[in-house]
Order: sequence, then structure tokens, then C-alpha cells
Amino acid sequence: MRIPKKLINDPSKVAKEQLEGLIAANHGRIQAIGDKGAVCVNPLPSPQVAIVTGGGSGHEPMFAGYLGPGLATAAACGDIFAAPPPGVILDAAQAADQGKGVLFVYGNYAGDNMNFDIAAELADDEDIETQTIRIWDDVASAPLSKIKERRGVAGDLFVLKIAGAAAAQGKSLGQVTEITAHARDCTRSVGVALSAGSIPQTGKYNFELPDDELEYGMGLHGEPGVSREKMASADTVVEQLLDRIIEDLPFVAGDKVCLLINNLGSSTVMELLIANRKVHSYLESKNIEVHDTLIGSYCTSQEMAGYSISLLKLDDTLTPLYDAPCHSFALRK
Amino acid sequence: MRIPKKLINDPSKVAKEQLEGLIAANHGRIQAIGDKGAVCVNPLPSPQVAIVTGGGSGHEPMFAGYLGPGLATAAACGDIFAAPPPGVILDAAQAADQGKGVLFVYGNYAGDNMNFDIAAELADDEDIETQTIRIWDDVASAPLSKIKERRGVAGDLFVLKIAGAAAAQGKSLGQVTEITAHARDCTRSVGVALSAGSIPQTGKYNFELPDDELEYGMGLHGEPGVSREKMASADTVVEQLLDRIIEDLPFVAGDKVCLLINNLGSSTVMELLIANRKVHSYLESKNIEVHDTLIGSYCTSQEMAGYSISLLKLDDTLTPLYDAPCHSFALRK
Repeated sequence: MRIPKKLINDPSKVAKEQLEGLIAANHGRIQAIGDKGAVCVNPLPSPQVAIVTGGGSGHEPMFAGYLGPGLATAAACGDIFAAPPPGVILDAAQAADQGKGVLFVYGNYAGDNMNFDIAAELADDEDIETQTIRIWDDVASAPLSKIKERRGVAGDLFVLKIAGAAAAQGKSLGQVTEITAHARDCTRSVGVALSAGSIPQTGKYNFELPDDELEYGMGLHGEPGVSREKMASADTVVEQLLDRIIEDLPFVAGDKVCLLINNLGSSTVMELLIANRKVHSYLESKNIEVHDTLIGSYCTSQEMAGYSISLLKLDDTLTPLYDAPCHSFALRK
Repeated sequence: MRIPKKLINDPSKVAKEQLEGLIAANHGRIQAIGDKGAVCVNPLPSPQVAIVTGGGSGHEPMFAGYLGPGLATAAACGDIFAAPPPGVILDAAQAADQGKGVLFVYGNYAGDNMNFDIAAELADDEDIETQTIRIWDDVASAPLSKIKERRGVAGDLFVLKIAGAAAAQGKSLGQVTEITAHARDCTRSVGVALSAGSIPQTGKYNFELPDDELEYGMGLHGEPGVSREKMASADTVVEQLLDRIIEDLPFVAGDKVCLLINNLGSSTVMELLIANRKVHSYLESKNIEVHDTLIGSYCTSQEMAGYSISLLKLDDTLTPLYDAPCHSFALRK
């Protein structure tokens, strides 16, 4: 049995300390709001709809790594794999609001849903108008007929990118909400895990996988996937992942997509690139054009080995918003 | 005993396939030169000194991930942890040369040194003028009195960044060489490993570390470090690393530096951010200003757990070159 080996300090303070490290890495471009996990860009952009995101920590650089011009305005960061409290979300919303309203954009998990909804009520008491887009891009987490039960995973990034770009163009809260919902509806993801991540506070792995098996559809917190199978070649695994994604939207010949191959934690960059080779040849064989390719650690689950693939289907609305410039710790365009 | 678990295809083809994946991720901005591991930007920039880098594969995204405007022009990629053959280096040099000469910039390893030197002779036969800068930023790999025996590690990135920016400004081969040597001389790195990476072709780990120990100064191919110690807190480890770096150059009060916290493979982004928190407070306590912070997988050793810290001391020459725009797969400014 492996023992989780991590360079941390007090295990109960990892969420706080990683956020301090992220703030330091931003060189003044983001700042803490209070000391409970809210963080906001600094200075605020010219008045626009505020994009407020958040969720549990432990998925670095998601979520607070995506604060900056053309992306999110503020984030509420919970403890490791725990939803941020409503008060922290309210802190983020109040810091980000410029009188144009706040769009909450976050992954679809029961705890996050509850706390963001409470925060929306608290914001209403403060005369801050809010709207909400929950992201449910993980095709493995529920059938299409129950899409609102699906989890949000790395596709969060695409949805945040579009939301941030739409807000930066000065669109109204209603318009930004509509476009963000559209981006969410055009995004699909699925992942494969080879080994588990561990939780710093407990020093325990989220799950166990035999040395000769992998699991499709594993969640970002170790939620069970859809099938365990024997280890297979990268090309076989990529085909399995893409088959699930393609048929779900569906993505069809003539489509133009953005691609994200997301390291769930401890996969090598070499493996991500080998996967990318196959993704491109697979999509080319389907006559699906890849407009842009992102590869790296964008939404992690501690040291989980494996990766997820996300596709965003572009159209005349989404393409210019995706291509718009943005500047954050973890994504620059 | 853990078993290395990786999503690959034929283990003998990982270097080739990762490069194909990298080329696909560049969407036409780089192209293969032949089929033996040379790759070059496409199209070439307006005529300038060519920056040609390279080395063994397995360190992705180093080296070929840093090709593009304001960075390297071409790269020669060997097999996993193996120097590229002279003919591949010559391929890269010939593709990149625009009559302004070629600067070879690479890490200081016996195999790379030999093959790049042979390639320089071959290039001379083809009337291509070359100069060479070997990078030896790893302070743990030899004493300062034998600096030319030190290995090149993640600090390669800083040196390539400066070289690429100087070349893009249209400077002469002599000027670019002088500035690149200066950047090399202002760069220091040291790493810590918690566990080993494995080699795809053999399926074996490079070394073993007990579950309760870490090793300072471990090389990128598993070369022995300078000391094995009991696991310690992140803050203690960062202090140990920075103490070694600071005293070596030395970096002193009033200095302005660029910082790179480089994931050696499978450390979590959370750990890198927690390290960054301490690095910034340490440097602030020494009155050393951090001009920019890079955190992520820039130069890896397969799935080795741990990270390295690199500092580049800036001055009036280096600051504008570091700040100059660049565009590559793995670094954009």
C-alpha cells in the first residue's frame, strides 16, 4: 500500500495556504476578501457583470486560478473537496459586484448548489442581483435524460472562459447568463483514472484501483465511475473516452471544437501529449475540426493519475468569445 | 512495490508519439523536420539568429514545448532520457538557420555536449555559423568551483526565454550568445524529490526512496542528489532549497528575480502553491523582489514527485528581454 507523500505544512491549513500561494503568484492582480476563502481581482475591471465562481479546494488551479481580465471576477474557495460556506460566497459576490449583477458559475454538486443558492438569497437582501449557471459536463455521471444530475468537471474552464469574455464585452446580466448557459450546453467531458488522489487532512486515498485496472468516469472527488477495465493502450482509452463524448451532444461532422486534455493530477505531460495525438486523429477521422488545444493541469483531484477530455462545440456566438484575450494565473490567451 | 502505470502505446515509441501530440497541439505553428525528432517553428520569423535547443525526451514540455515567436526556433528531441543524435540536431539547425547563424542552447550533459558539438562541426561543413551555450543551473550537482560540471535543469527555461527574446530583437549571433551566457550565469536551481519517475521502455523506477524520506538535489534522470533526509514540512523544505540557491550566486538584498517553481512530475498544484507562499515570504524577508512567478510542469522527469525552484537574477539587460512577448505551447507572455 502506497503512503501519500506530500510537501505540506499543517494538513488542516492546506486550503488556506494554497490560496495564499496563489495570491502571491498573481503579484497583486487578485486579493483576499476577508480570511475565509473569498478572493477577487484587483482592481475591478470597468463596470461589468461580475462572474463569481468557486467550489471546494483541492482541484488547483480550479477555481481561483482563473481570476482576471476576460475570465472570472471572484471566487469562493472551500476547504479540500468541501463547498465554500454561503458567507464566503457572499463575500466574493459583494467584492465583485459593480451594480451590473453577479453571475454564479460553478460545478453541479449538492453542497455547492445549496450554499450558492443561500448566498444568492443573502445577496438579494443586499440588493445584488444574481443569476446562476450550474455546469454539468461530465457525461459519465448520469444519463443524458438526467443531465441536471451530472457533475461539473474540467469543462468548467470552457464555461468560465465564455462567461468572462461575454461579461468583459459589457453585455447585460441576462445576456451573459444566456450565453453562459449556451456554452455549458455545448460542453462535454469524461475522464479516466489510473490511481487515486489522497486527502491531506486524512492522509487516505479516495479509492483503490488494482495495479492492472483503470476506471472510466471517475469523479473529481473519487466518485465511482461507470466501468473498471483492464489497463489498455492510450489509443484505446482515448477512443473509449471520445466515443462517450461524441455520441452524447452529439458532435458531428463539420463541427468545430475546442479541446481540453486535463491532467487529473499525476499523469505525465508525455502521456497527455500521446493522448492528444490520438484525439486529433480521431476527430479528424470524424471530420470534426479542432480550433484550439489546451493540455495540462487545469482541474485536478490531488494526485489522481489519469486525465479527462473536454470538448466545447463552437458556433458564431462562442468562437469570438473563446478567442477573446484573457489573463489569469492558469489561462492566458 | 508500486508498478508504474501509464497510458501509452508501444513503449518504444513514446518519444515519437509525444512529439506528434505536441505538433498537433501547436495547430501548424511548428512542424516536424524529417521523422527522427527534429522540429521547427512554421513559418520562420523574419530573419534572425536561430535558437536551437534539445535534449532527451521524457522531460515534457521541455524542450520542444518552447518553440515559437520570442522563444526557441527549433529543437532536436532524443529518445527518453537520451541525447538527440548529431544528425537530428543538424536537421534542426538547417531548418532554423536563416543565414544569421545558430545558437545552440541546451542542458549540460555529456551526451548532449558530444552530440551538439558534432552537429556544430557538421553545420560548419554546411556553412552554418554556430555558437553554443550550455546551461548548468543545478547548484546541487557540483560545487561552485566546478560550475561547468553542473547539470542543466528547469532553469533552462529562463535561459531559452532570454535567448529567444534577444534573437527576436534582431541582435547578432555574437550579441545573442553573450546575452544568453549572461542569463545562464544569473540562473540557479535546485530540486527535491519525494519519489521516482519510471522509464517507459523498461517499466522500472529510476531510484527508490523510503516512504518517510526525501532527497535534495536529485537530477532530472534520477542522478543522486546531495542528501537524503526525513520528510519535513513544506516550509522547511523550501527554506533548505532557497538557502542553497541564495548563497550560491549569491542573491542579495535589493535583487530583483524571476521565480520558477517547477513540478518534477506528479506533485500536486496545491503543493506547488503552498511552496510558492513560503518562497515569496522567504524572499521578502531577504529583501529580494519577485518580478514574475511561474508555477507548473515546465521541465519534468516523468512521474517523479517533487519540485525544483529556479531563480533568474534580473538587471537592466535581462528585464526587458524577460518581459518581451513570446508564444509557445508551454509558455506565453
